Amino acid sequence: MQPNEHLFPTDKIRGREAKEYLLKQKGIAVWMTGLSGSGKTTIAVALEKALAEKGILTQVLDGDNIRTGINSNLGFSATDRTENIRRIAEVARLFVHCGVVTICCFVSPTEKLRRTAKKIIGASDFVEVYIKTALAVCEERDVKGLYAKARKGEIKDFTGVDAVFETPLNPDLILVTRHLPVEESVDIILKKIFSK
Amino acid sequence: MQPNEHLFPTDKIRGREAKEYLLKQKGIAVWMTGLSGSGKTTIAVALEKALAEKGILTQVLDGDNIRTGINSNLGFSATDRTENIRRIAEVARLFVHCGVVTICCFVSPTEKLRRTAKKIIGASDFVEVYIKTALAVCEERDVKGLYAKARKGEIKDFTGVDAVFETPLNPDLILVTRHLPVEESVDIILKKIFSK
Repeated sequence: MQPNEHLFPTDKIRGREAKEYLLKQKGIAVWMTGLSGSGKTTIAVALEKALAEKGILTQVLDGDNIRTGINSNLGFSATDRTENIRRIAEVARLFVHCGVVTICCFVSPTEKLRRTAKKIIGASDFVEVYIKTALAVCEERDVKGLYAKARKGEIKDFTGVDAVFETPLNPDLILVTRHLPVEESVDIILKKIFSK
Repeated sequence: MQPNEHLFPTDKIRGREAKEYLLKQKGIAVWMTGLSGSGKTTIAVALEKALAEKGILTQVLDGDNIRTGINSNLGFSATDRTENIRRIAEVARLFVHCGVVTICCFVSPTEKLRRTAKKIIGASDFVEVYIKTALAVCEERDVKGLYAKARKGEIKDFTGVDAVFETPLNPDLILVTRHLPVEESVDIILKKIFSK
């Protein structure tokens, strides 16, 4: 089966359509926003597994592979936070245009940051998922010990402690983790992205 | 067919092996270095086409999708050129770890820049291809009119005109385009990457 020469010209860098045709899937970005410890990565892992079982290629972008890599020269000032999100969104856009389901797990605490990401990636390729977990729950989990450090003043401007998390104004999904097992959250996201 | 649970743990972000298993291919970076107009993009297009015919997913990174995107806030100072290559290499690394054959087309005129890229991506995932085309030929083609501008002094520090291109000291491949049709260059690269 040869793709249509009109859709996939042979004298140009291969575009998104050709990649999606090859992969038999559509690229999209699932942007998960929420407090540290809210469950973004837990849901991302389960979402990736569910997608992999359908043979779908995914890429998770999170602090672990971004802050240690492309954004290793950025700190946590307001300017650097904006640049952090800008670069993440540009990387996500490249993956989406390569046909990959790209799952972004970042606190992204302000509406402005999330709007920046959405603008760069493109509204039609962007699913904003607000992982809603009470601060007290996140702080009690404190998997990485960050809340403890923030309370002691060892980390400054920590979202939820001494920096604000702005409730998303218009997310595509709100997942209230207290009421939803991870599997149900995943099902809801899957339904959303397959409807796109 | 279920992948081995040992290789693909379900409680972690999916790693490279799981992606390569799904795609039935190995990630690798083909780093093409050479003067502006040397033929990097032409070879990349033909290489992508040859790989697509084998069902292999590729991603080209070049000035068109990098300088307008993630590196849109960088200029051409020495510092910015280094940061430009650093970010490109970090993006390439993400794609390689996603199992994608990643074709990077950048003049990358100094040994230091190329070493930086190789270090970030990892030597075992990095194939350095020197596209060797005489300056006179590149300048005569001048597809983008950049040499003309550089000669008039409208662009400063243009590689080949008033900035040096350091001959790669130890590339994996040297493609002398004067003696090689594009198809043969592609065959040579394919042989190299499939041997890796």
